[in-house]
Amino acid sequence: MLKKKSKYVVAVVGATGVVGRELIEILEERNFPVSELVPLASERSEGERVAFNGKNVVVRKLDKDSFKDVDIALFSAGAERSLEFAPMAVKSGAVVIDNSSAFRMDPRVPLVVPEVNAGVMAAHEGIIANPNCSTIGVVMALKPIHDAVKIRRIVVTTFQSVSGTGKKAIDELAGQTVALLNFKDAETNVYPHQIAFNCLPHIDVFLDNGYTKEEMKLVNETKKIMKDDTIGVTATAVRVPVFRCHSESVNIETEKKICANEVRAILSAAPGIIVYDDPKKNLYPLATDMAGKDDVYVGRIREDESIPNGINLWLVFDNLRKGAALNAVQIAESLIQ
Amino acid sequence: MLKKKSKYVVAVVGATGVVGRELIEILEERNFPVSELVPLASERSEGERVAFNGKNVVVRKLDKDSFKDVDIALFSAGAERSLEFAPMAVKSGAVVIDNSSAFRMDPRVPLVVPEVNAGVMAAHEGIIANPNCSTIGVVMALKPIHDAVKIRRIVVTTFQSVSGTGKKAIDELAGQTVALLNFKDAETNVYPHQIAFNCLPHIDVFLDNGYTKEEMKLVNETKKIMKDDTIGVTATAVRVPVFRCHSESVNIETEKKICANEVRAILSAAPGIIVYDDPKKNLYPLATDMAGKDDVYVGRIREDESIPNGINLWLVFDNLRKGAALNAVQIAESLIQ
Repeated sequence: MLKKKSKYVVAVVGATGVVGRELIEILEERNFPVSELVPLASERSEGERVAFNGKNVVVRKLDKDSFKDVDIALFSAGAERSLEFAPMAVKSGAVVIDNSSAFRMDPRVPLVVPEVNAGVMAAHEGIIANPNCSTIGVVMALKPIHDAVKIRRIVVTTFQSVSGTGKKAIDELAGQTVALLNFKDAETNVYPHQIAFNCLPHIDVFLDNGYTKEEMKLVNETKKIMKDDTIGVTATAVRVPVFRCHSESVNIETEKKICANEVRAILSAAPGIIVYDDPKKNLYPLATDMAGKDDVYVGRIREDESIPNGINLWLVFDNLRKGAALNAVQIAESLIQ
Repeated sequence: MLKKKSKYVVAVVGATGVVGRELIEILEERNFPVSELVPLASERSEGERVAFNGKNVVVRKLDKDSFKDVDIALFSAGAERSLEFAPMAVKSGAVVIDNSSAFRMDPRVPLVVPEVNAGVMAAHEGIIANPNCSTIGVVMALKPIHDAVKIRRIVVTTFQSVSGTGKKAIDELAGQTVALLNFKDAETNVYPHQIAFNCLPHIDVFLDNGYTKEEMKLVNETKKIMKDDTIGVTATAVRVPVFRCHSESVNIETEKKICANEVRAILSAAPGIIVYDDPKKNLYPLATDMAGKDDVYVGRIREDESIPNGINLWLVFDNLRKGAALNAVQIAESLIQ
């Protein structure tokens, strides 16, 4: 649907948010062929400037006319804005790559992690969805294992950084931490409870089945991306007092037996994954080490002796990059290939 | 083996540590019948004073003669010291309640959580072991479910606070946090990596099977306390930047089907457990709320739809109290009953 060009007009919706800024940085860093960058945001940020390829580009207010001549629109401004403006962008002739949850489970919308299922992109009807951050980490690590020995079930517990919530949450963690270390009360605005020195088993809203929406995203998006509804997925999503990068504890049951060394070999050969696993040297992936990195880091790979065919692993990735902006730009790259 | 008395001479080994101080506080708080408190510690702390029942008691140096006339010796000074001095205490006629890992898996030593298996205490030969903190939380919540529908397998991921490591670790988290917020480097002495704003999938030492000793404690101690080797247990133990209280994400597979409401009813009726589970009101257990509390708090109880008979839950407890000192004093209370 996208006409082949040498350079593209690229809009970034939510250009002043944490993911928006990362999107613009990554477009520049990876030399994406941009003829014009169109940074869009709410009225509040109109007139701000964002740096791109050595120029300062003025942020425009997002409205129904924003997408004239835009080839690719990268959305990262929340589900509500995507629901309202993505169809307008498509009508204007743009292909939308949407980072929100708005269209992910729509059967007409491909949900893509390029290393895992780039093939489904061809069938898009104007919108391609970028999966939830936690899901991207899981499917990156699990797809190569699934291809080798078929995964029956996974049990995931996440350790998610506050940058996934946005700038206000980063400020809240820093502000609460400073307050508490000065024996003052922690002010709580973004999260329902104090996040500094605490772990909140609550990300996104609660649903009727007792799970959070974040947990159900992991369940449903994983099955859609892996194209396999028979995989059992259950999740507990936890916000932790970490600024950047998500960590996940993943327990896997496979159809065929696989040993830890085979998992290491398979993941070492997989694109976008780095096996970082030498516990005797205290080497395992850590949130503080992976900020700004592109890959999903996997460590603590070991056999789970509580079942015949089980594996435990620990993975860490930059939630703003592979968990959001980088994956979206990689989708755009696949699109123009 | 312990002679019935109206009051007992009680020694606390490791009296100046975080658990030692908590032990002394809890003995006072619960009016344990103490005729004389004997606080013992290493040479470094000799001569310090600890407050007990309105008096300042001088800390004595731990040596082979420390246990003369001692009836009950509460050990919390690490496995090495327990291995050396607990047998001496027993020889002197004391009953040892040991908070270290030294004797926990010794088949002659009862491993006790009074609400769960007080019955096994009678067979002690001088030493009774206090389980590892993470294990206590798990068995407290799981035993009532096991009794109702038999547990087949559990998958646990822990979120453990730094107070489990001791005073130095509390100082390290505070010190690193202050340094980082002042744009200085975080100094790392206690843990192999920065703990501030980070999650370390590494507690205690790594073993040859790729698990940490902390993870294997959870596996082996759970089976011993539940008196059931057929329960599958697998664990990932993670240190988080929280000062006090451990949280745990627990996935349970049961023999018979049980629904979330039945789990709530069973746990609400169990001693030492408080069901704190009203997600629509943002109520779930949190580390910052449970410091100083005696009970194990359970929330986020929900059915795991990835298997026919599955339950997920989230539990939080004060690792220094029910996870250590309180459980030890409860053992002493059972002993003198």
